[in-house]
Amino acid sequence: MSLKIYNTLTQKKEEFVPLNSKFVGMYVCGPTVYGYPHLGHAKSYVFFDIVNRYLSFLDYKVKYVQNITDVGHLVNDADEGEDKIQKQAKKESLDPYAIAYKYENIYFECMDKLNIKRPTISCRATGHIIEIIEMIKTLIDKGYAYVTEKGNVYYDISKFKDYGCLSNRSITDALSGKRINVATDKRHEEDFALWKKADNTHIMKWNSPWSIGYPGWHIECSVMAKKYLTDSFDIHGGGMENMFPHHECEIAQSTSANGHPFAKYFIHNNLLTINGQKMGKSLGNFITLPDLFSQYNPNIIRFYLLQFHYRKPTDFEDKKLFETILNYNKICSSFKSLPLPSDKITTKEIQAIADKFLEAMNDDFNTSLAITYIYDLMKLVNKTKDEDILKDVAYFNETYIKGILGLIFDSTRDISDLSDSCIIYLIELRNKFRKEKNYLLADEIRDKLSSLNIEINERDPKPSYKIKM
Amino acid sequence: MSLKIYNTLTQKKEEFVPLNSKFVGMYVCGPTVYGYPHLGHAKSYVFFDIVNRYLSFLDYKVKYVQNITDVGHLVNDADEGEDKIQKQAKKESLDPYAIAYKYENIYFECMDKLNIKRPTISCRATGHIIEIIEMIKTLIDKGYAYVTEKGNVYYDISKFKDYGCLSNRSITDALSGKRINVATDKRHEEDFALWKKADNTHIMKWNSPWSIGYPGWHIECSVMAKKYLTDSFDIHGGGMENMFPHHECEIAQSTSANGHPFAKYFIHNNLLTINGQKMGKSLGNFITLPDLFSQYNPNIIRFYLLQFHYRKPTDFEDKKLFETILNYNKICSSFKSLPLPSDKITTKEIQAIADKFLEAMNDDFNTSLAITYIYDLMKLVNKTKDEDILKDVAYFNETYIKGILGLIFDSTRDISDLSDSCIIYLIELRNKFRKEKNYLLADEIRDKLSSLNIEINERDPKPSYKIKM
Repeated sequence: MSLKIYNTLTQKKEEFVPLNSKFVGMYVCGPTVYGYPHLGHAKSYVFFDIVNRYLSFLDYKVKYVQNITDVGHLVNDADEGEDKIQKQAKKESLDPYAIAYKYENIYFECMDKLNIKRPTISCRATGHIIEIIEMIKTLIDKGYAYVTEKGNVYYDISKFKDYGCLSNRSITDALSGKRINVATDKRHEEDFALWKKADNTHIMKWNSPWSIGYPGWHIECSVMAKKYLTDSFDIHGGGMENMFPHHECEIAQSTSANGHPFAKYFIHNNLLTINGQKMGKSLGNFITLPDLFSQYNPNIIRFYLLQFHYRKPTDFEDKKLFETILNYNKICSSFKSLPLPSDKITTKEIQAIADKFLEAMNDDFNTSLAITYIYDLMKLVNKTKDEDILKDVAYFNETYIKGILGLIFDSTRDISDLSDSCIIYLIELRNKFRKEKNYLLADEIRDKLSSLNIEINERDPKPSYKIKM
Repeated sequence: MSLKIYNTLTQKKEEFVPLNSKFVGMYVCGPTVYGYPHLGHAKSYVFFDIVNRYLSFLDYKVKYVQNITDVGHLVNDADEGEDKIQKQAKKESLDPYAIAYKYENIYFECMDKLNIKRPTISCRATGHIIEIIEMIKTLIDKGYAYVTEKGNVYYDISKFKDYGCLSNRSITDALSGKRINVATDKRHEEDFALWKKADNTHIMKWNSPWSIGYPGWHIECSVMAKKYLTDSFDIHGGGMENMFPHHECEIAQSTSANGHPFAKYFIHNNLLTINGQKMGKSLGNFITLPDLFSQYNPNIIRFYLLQFHYRKPTDFEDKKLFETILNYNKICSSFKSLPLPSDKITTKEIQAIADKFLEAMNDDFNTSLAITYIYDLMKLVNKTKDEDILKDVAYFNETYIKGILGLIFDSTRDISDLSDSCIIYLIELRNKFRKEKNYLLADEIRDKLSSLNIEINERDPKPSYKIKM
């Protein structure tokens, strides 16, 4: 039984064979930090967290690199116009670097709430300008890029015969593209910016051999993937919307600059819709994670998302959300009574479920199927009294459900209940010792409680107390 | 009534007058991310959080910049030897960039638990190599720095007449320093590294006009302060141990490179001792924050630290910690019964306390005095029935205690401490009964705890448990 991954590069499900036996290098395109993270981010990063967790479960040593785009991503993903972060900075009248840091923090807060493990390395585009300039130099020296009289540098797609290999566009189609009015210093419409000269309004800018400017949107990922994962690595992930142009451009930049193949497997996450509609601020159905988490337990949102296979579109709709909440609560109450986990699975019933679970995960991370087996466990728990089975369910919950799926089915324990039960029990013990005329111990318990500001109601026949003010 | 700050530069308490009316720029030296944050970090960053919160309370728009040192800080703070982060990377056999990111995360997790507000901008040294190289170029061009045949660049302290202005060392004393065997390519012993050539073992290194190398320890702060706060800004903070050489070198670099004064006010935090001793791994009294927080509520640790004035040494000792816990719990229980806060203070009783509180804070952030007024409030709450006073106390708690001191007297945490104490005590009783061969009772206690989903860690010699999920 081996892991198969659908590779967008070959458009086939392939057996996963990493470049260096037990080590896996994975690069996933991170957020552009100019606003609140939304449900689309949740879908994408929950899924790549599953990839990270499952590969680790399979004993690979995973180096997971995720970037933070804090410069160069212009509105409409274009090569001309305003920087998304600087635009937001104006709105909030803050330093663009403060905006980037603010939304980077909110992003990770939300990811933490979704129980997404931090990447091994989170790296910022603005932190790699020197490396970016070096790669652009290399591309110019090798003839893949050209400098214009405006002080911009563009990648010349006509020089890279494989341009389009990921998104299945023929280079001739690409080159036939009509020239557009903007950025008239491009040779071909689909040539893309590696370095842009900054106008005076730009705050985030650096010296370079070509102009005082800033990097294009695509170059940062090629540079950071090379720096942290070397020229060739195992997995490159991102949302489907990144396939073209972003990942296409990365492949062009990296293979032509490095002279080596880039990522071996490309994994793309499908889109998210809200009640069947595309999510968008204009449509008034834009769901930010801070808003969502003010209403729903993030575990439930994670549970919701994992019900869909990552390559299928995920529709976030009210009826299914309601069902998900009911199911989540059912599972919580059924798992609440589980004993301590066994050290490994010992019963054939749970082993059979575990096998099917791993089979689903090995089939291109089919969480949609894997998750259904949680209901089989729930049914088992609700009807069996067999301690071994229950211990195995607890083990499965720890290792597979919490460990691989990152799902936590906890009905949060009421701490005050807990302390109350403990205090009542101590008072019962004390009364017992008094009956037995063991006053030494009885008084010791009373004194201990009083040192915790707990006063026993001596007059009350049944054990009761009050916390001293 | 105006804010006075003790300025290390002038060694006087001065009225605080920012450079640009309502805006305050503050730079505080952040951690070198190669290990767990310790109690010394807590002391320093809790205090600068107070400065940040109080200036904001006074309606200043604070831009708080804090750096992350992730390269160039060598063992023993020397100019020769191993990079602290790379040394740790070898230990954990991880990429140094992964080590830096790992401990940066743990640092901020701990700071969050201490209720320390994130800085406006947190910036990494490795993210500013291009800016670092530019400042070094300027220093060489202006004749303040020299390149050696080894490919190193040093700052020539003999060229900066004010060298020593912060730590009160005369330049002649500094120059009279004997030459040392290491770094024999220095002109004077106290010349300090701006750029070091990397040997082959170094992983974190970059191209530069002088060598493939890495920046010295001091230059990053001058560069990042300039980038985010411009040449001249209001407050530079750090621990007393940073005064020399670190801040002395920053002043030399920045004033000579920028041709403008550097920070207007220098604030230095005094040292921390453990039961009267210097804290150190060798002394076996090294307290990391993750360890500490596994035993104590971080609010209590913050409360403990604020009992000392920042310019006095803080001794962390058992008796005072015990008192602090008791006082914390008393205040929690007394504040538990508060009504909803008033919109502003309306009673003369609370106004009088508020005035004294602000007077203390205005006197160089005297939290040690300010905190004593919390007890006055507690006494008031415990004896009065006057709703207006109680509402004002609630307001004071929100605005002054939570808002300015960042202290949360929250009873839910109080209860979890309580249940913890009760559970531990029950386990102690059980062990006692086992020793006395009273297995009936010992087992009864074990079963009772287990019925509360509390599992005793039998292997642990000291009483401990885990709560089953």
